[in-house]
Amino acid sequence: MENTNQVINTAGKPIVCKGAVCRKEGEALVIEDIEVAPPKAWEVRVKIICTSLCHSDVTFWKMPPGPASALPRIFGHEAVGVVESVGENVEEVKEGDTVLPVFMANCEKCKDCKSSKSNFCAETRWHFAMPRDGTTRFKDMKGEEIHHFLAASTFTEYTVVDIFHLVKISPQMPVDKACLLSCGVTTGVGAAWKVAQVEEGSTVAVFGLGAVGLAVARAAKLQGASKIIGVDLNPKKEDVGKKFGVTDFINPKECKEKKISEAIKEITDGGADYTFECIGLASVMQDAFESTREGWGRTIILGVESQGTPMSINTWSMMRGITVTGSFFGGIKPKSDIPLLAQRYMNKELCLDGFITHEVSFNEINKAFEYLINGESLRCIIWMAK
Amino acid sequence: MENTNQVINTAGKPIVCKGAVCRKEGEALVIEDIEVAPPKAWEVRVKIICTSLCHSDVTFWKMPPGPASALPRIFGHEAVGVVESVGENVEEVKEGDTVLPVFMANCEKCKDCKSSKSNFCAETRWHFAMPRDGTTRFKDMKGEEIHHFLAASTFTEYTVVDIFHLVKISPQMPVDKACLLSCGVTTGVGAAWKVAQVEEGSTVAVFGLGAVGLAVARAAKLQGASKIIGVDLNPKKEDVGKKFGVTDFINPKECKEKKISEAIKEITDGGADYTFECIGLASVMQDAFESTREGWGRTIILGVESQGTPMSINTWSMMRGITVTGSFFGGIKPKSDIPLLAQRYMNKELCLDGFITHEVSFNEINKAFEYLINGESLRCIIWMAK
Repeated sequence: MENTNQVINTAGKPIVCKGAVCRKEGEALVIEDIEVAPPKAWEVRVKIICTSLCHSDVTFWKMPPGPASALPRIFGHEAVGVVESVGENVEEVKEGDTVLPVFMANCEKCKDCKSSKSNFCAETRWHFAMPRDGTTRFKDMKGEEIHHFLAASTFTEYTVVDIFHLVKISPQMPVDKACLLSCGVTTGVGAAWKVAQVEEGSTVAVFGLGAVGLAVARAAKLQGASKIIGVDLNPKKEDVGKKFGVTDFINPKECKEKKISEAIKEITDGGADYTFECIGLASVMQDAFESTREGWGRTIILGVESQGTPMSINTWSMMRGITVTGSFFGGIKPKSDIPLLAQRYMNKELCLDGFITHEVSFNEINKAFEYLINGESLRCIIWMAK
Repeated sequence: MENTNQVINTAGKPIVCKGAVCRKEGEALVIEDIEVAPPKAWEVRVKIICTSLCHSDVTFWKMPPGPASALPRIFGHEAVGVVESVGENVEEVKEGDTVLPVFMANCEKCKDCKSSKSNFCAETRWHFAMPRDGTTRFKDMKGEEIHHFLAASTFTEYTVVDIFHLVKISPQMPVDKACLLSCGVTTGVGAAWKVAQVEEGSTVAVFGLGAVGLAVARAAKLQGASKIIGVDLNPKKEDVGKKFGVTDFINPKECKEKKISEAIKEITDGGADYTFECIGLASVMQDAFESTREGWGRTIILGVESQGTPMSINTWSMMRGITVTGSFFGGIKPKSDIPLLAQRYMNKELCLDGFITHEVSFNEINKAFEYLINGESLRCIIWMAK
């Protein structure tokens, strides 16, 4: 079968296209011409259709020079695109397929991938470059290498992704909604559905009502939770939360002398069955733990503590039957679970409305940063072609 | 039906009998005449057949005067006895029944008792006296009140126990083996069987090879664990451990510069599926956590951190899929689960051999303390009538 797609001319050759490059931490991304090398073995070059901005992009964008920082770099790890060309040994996808780059690997061969209990593929390696050979596929017009981010780097018209980090999705799925499934929303939905397995009638407390926390609330509602308590310092989140299933709202600033955990224990008659930390602060993790019902309660840690502060646990309370679980990406296995979530969306079971609050064209990408940093947006879709 | 049992003469009256009273912390118990009041409503007076010494007795016996200490006091919370008489409203047991006092309450009516997920009965209150009215049933011959311990106080010929803290067991069950089921051994067996649900082929690390840790090893072996790593500072525990299913032994003193967690990761190719902390030291809890396999591993905390030092958790590791669970009494619900364990013993499924290393008569009770403190004994059975 002859491939009549326009991309046939670019396969095997470098592509010059627009990329949004971070040249200095915390400064506006620069849209410039970049050269994207063709995919090597087990790699796929993807034409991005749309991408969105997640807090992790902002965290690394702000990060001062150090071991976890490398500039220039192309950020972005939530996106949907179309396969432009594939490298050797790639059989799972072909030119024209709709795909989702995902920061978690899923080799489907390691012990973790083969176990139903883990989603932490042994091949997950977040270098500054391609995971297999440690080299980059991006260069600027002076020939300087540009670093990769979380095995995705989606703030560019074309990117190269390892096949372990790529999920094929149905072309029937609206691309902006699909984009949500590549990180934040899936993390929240997975935490409630797969990690905690929230059940009908149970009580839930969600710390931090960003996209992740709201996705927890939405999924907890879908699972039939009777009370969903949202905790956030931003008073606007009270109304936002209600649209996602939050039944009770606590603003820690208004708690005065009462501890947040006391307020939650009052609402839930002793503590929430499931508490979710969606911020990434050790002190909030402790609040979540203290708000968890003794006997059977579970504290689920989703937020990444980027300062490295450890969580401190009162073992006397813990021994009264509390479990603390950590998870990345909501325990979701990319290749098998994301298509299931997409199917649940298309079956009208999983509602993805409300997460996309803003849309901009690629050349306005820095506005997406403003919206998120100012707490105005949940997800801002960045359209490459508009 | 007329009760022809000899105990008919004592029902409703105080009994004067021998009790082993702790009059000063850390000093030998004094066997003296004490008066045991008749049981009030929902209470049962029990004639102790045999009792054994657990580390928790020693911890509280050593404790200097303070909020968790009250002297004079009768320690002991592992025992088997026969019902001498019952107070009003007690229908669950009758004179002559073989019973086990248990430090965990089990009212069978509260939310926790009704849930299959909790064993932390809302009625569990470890006062210095009877749980319902806060008064004592013991007096010395000068009329001074003697305090209770963990709702049991079994170092006496007669004690009074609340019906919520009493389990009826089959008279076919050998009493010394039954005695093991009232605390330490059940804690270990329950942690492996009910809390962790150790499965066939999995790897296990047990920190602390006292009776609790050895019971974890025994139960893990019964569940089909492929590797059971025992960790203990006492080199004698290597041989002891092997009798209970331990396949690999680590003495932290011999690890030199290698961390215990590294040694365990080498043996298990990445970390044990289940790690059990059976000592009660925050630093060891951390070792257990660090030795747990990322992806799906579980750290189970059984040891009581009596200094109150919190456990410190590296959340970055935890997010790679580790769960930490605390439990008292191995998640065992006394009234329903202990008879099951007894039945499993009588069916020759659960082996209770090897835990009883010493036996003494009641008047030698202080020897039991020596044996345990010197690390010579696992459990010393103290026979009341010998």
